[in-house]
Amino acid sequence: MGNALKQVAVLGSTGSIGRQTLEVISAFPHRFRIIGLAAGKNYDLLARQISQFKPRFVHFQGKKARLSNAEYELLSLEEIASHPEVDIVVMATSGKWGLSPTLAAVKAGKRLALANKESLVMAGEIIIKEAKLSGAQILPVDSEHSAIWQCLEGETQKATQIILTASGGPFLHYSPAQLADVTVEQALSHPSWRMGRKVTIDSATLMNKGLEVIEAHWLFDMPFDNIKVLIHPQSIVHSMVEFSDGSIKAQLSYPDMRLPIQYALSYPERLANPQLPKLDWETIKKLTFEPPDLDTFPCLKLAIEAGKMGGTYPAVLCAADEVAVELFLSQLINFIDIAGLVEQALQEHQAISHPAVEEIMAADAWAREKVMQLASGDNLW
Amino acid sequence: MGNALKQVAVLGSTGSIGRQTLEVISAFPHRFRIIGLAAGKNYDLLARQISQFKPRFVHFQGKKARLSNAEYELLSLEEIASHPEVDIVVMATSGKWGLSPTLAAVKAGKRLALANKESLVMAGEIIIKEAKLSGAQILPVDSEHSAIWQCLEGETQKATQIILTASGGPFLHYSPAQLADVTVEQALSHPSWRMGRKVTIDSATLMNKGLEVIEAHWLFDMPFDNIKVLIHPQSIVHSMVEFSDGSIKAQLSYPDMRLPIQYALSYPERLANPQLPKLDWETIKKLTFEPPDLDTFPCLKLAIEAGKMGGTYPAVLCAADEVAVELFLSQLINFIDIAGLVEQALQEHQAISHPAVEEIMAADAWAREKVMQLASGDNLW
Repeated sequence: MGNALKQVAVLGSTGSIGRQTLEVISAFPHRFRIIGLAAGKNYDLLARQISQFKPRFVHFQGKKARLSNAEYELLSLEEIASHPEVDIVVMATSGKWGLSPTLAAVKAGKRLALANKESLVMAGEIIIKEAKLSGAQILPVDSEHSAIWQCLEGETQKATQIILTASGGPFLHYSPAQLADVTVEQALSHPSWRMGRKVTIDSATLMNKGLEVIEAHWLFDMPFDNIKVLIHPQSIVHSMVEFSDGSIKAQLSYPDMRLPIQYALSYPERLANPQLPKLDWETIKKLTFEPPDLDTFPCLKLAIEAGKMGGTYPAVLCAADEVAVELFLSQLINFIDIAGLVEQALQEHQAISHPAVEEIMAADAWAREKVMQLASGDNLW
Repeated sequence: MGNALKQVAVLGSTGSIGRQTLEVISAFPHRFRIIGLAAGKNYDLLARQISQFKPRFVHFQGKKARLSNAEYELLSLEEIASHPEVDIVVMATSGKWGLSPTLAAVKAGKRLALANKESLVMAGEIIIKEAKLSGAQILPVDSEHSAIWQCLEGETQKATQIILTASGGPFLHYSPAQLADVTVEQALSHPSWRMGRKVTIDSATLMNKGLEVIEAHWLFDMPFDNIKVLIHPQSIVHSMVEFSDGSIKAQLSYPDMRLPIQYALSYPERLANPQLPKLDWETIKKLTFEPPDLDTFPCLKLAIEAGKMGGTYPAVLCAADEVAVELFLSQLINFIDIAGLVEQALQEHQAISHPAVEEIMAADAWAREKVMQLASGDNLW
């Protein structure tokens, strides 16, 4: 991307990924300039970010009146994502709200640093097709997909297998009986990554890894049967790629999201950043690997099945999981009910193949209602 | 390299690397054709190889009379290495005999698959300079350097650190006292790699890793202080590369020399070869890493120091080690005397900076005589 100053829009700037993106951008004022910021509900933080980064475009989902200011323009997420003066869109909004601005950025042929995995899970077929048409670059921000992408750089042929690593979450080696009693607090204590609440619970159920399998399928055009999940509790190897000759490449670093964020911004260059920790091999004595326990953590299996079935199933998976996780966080259902509710929603869904965006959004709405209905009907709370 | 049939000359065809090169070439008859074979003393095997691969050029260091045959031409190593019809030279001769044909191949601008590490250790400065002038491609065949090279592919900037892994050899965790008593048989029992006798002993003393540090210095233009050695007994991670952003890439596979040999032949393509084993993550439970013990294995330290001092020191290191290992294999000295003899030779050497090839060969001859003199004078046998 040369040395020109790049204008970056961060959608979801007050979330975990958004804040870390601004941290990276602050470290390279001669390379990146914030042109747009968008947030959901955290007005106070957004206001501080506005005063620090002085964006030209702002979006806020809360009360608009509080943000009337002559120094910036209030735009929609889609308007910011596709604005001609935006060079890089960092899509760090969570859940289904990322889909429409992701599509807008892709159709506008932007460089898209994508942290919102739901958009690819729900509408991967549409997004990849649009990116091919417009020439948009989709650069993954998830540490696993960034690792895969880094390992694929310079290779002249496709990989034969992707090995997605997973920390295993806080409940690794728990029995189904032990899982029945876990609390919200326990589920929110991730052993290696500090992340938002939703993705932390998804890491504990392994649903997050399942969503990542679907994401990898779309990003790297890889059949589901050639994507393997491997538990690696140290979270040092972020993923691996196997080639036709049997050679495997892996990418390693401490679990720190600023690295994949920075790589997506600076690609194909790498930037020296003293804030990013370097692996200390005096303390890393061993890296361990084991297969995931699909019986105890059925969400991973459900996600892979939904990905393989395709159509509107992955949208139902995402939506059902989002509602179920919210119910768990509100202490209205148990941890193990999350998988049960998602499974029931998938079973009752009448899927549509190769759906349009409207059909995907309809499946999303159906699944949300279905999970609420199932949860109350089953007297889960 | 496209799909054209490449004509390959294998110099050192009866050694371990040479035989495995022919195995790889046999698997891809439509991609590679043997045009030249060269061997030192193993006439019987060379004769079988000639009848199987029907080379046009042959070199044999033993009695030439046995090889008079109208079906091939008897040429020198240098003539084969630089012959216009040779596309790829696999340099698998051992020791200093590789230097002259390596230089011939490099000056002729060949693609050189280099397994002979001594030539780069002795004359890295000259070889790299000549390769730049001629446009020769030097492709490493050592598993470690192949790993580094694979990890560097596609990167737009230099690495900031190279992490060379080492199995640690059969005497990992031995005390100096335990090392004093080890036998030739024990030293030849390498835990993970099957290789020739000289390199197996060098692996047991860690001299081999020291030579590889010097090799990496020249191949990847990397300062010695940025090359780190890490003991990794499983020999699955063949080396790693760290970049300016702290990201590390590693290359993994079972220890099997056919993979790096094949990659050097097929680069930038990779070829599916069912004979090459794929990593089985059900059996690989953990990968361990620890720093090397430089006090117990002084050869590694000696090699790095010789590399840093440069000039004719690395040639003295190589030659002194070769003679000392030969004395150990003949049961004339003890295992720990290898390091002592190399150290004394280095201390007594009057080095020349930026030496010419003749000066390197003179230093080699001096070191060989010096070690014999030291060993007999000290009554080591």
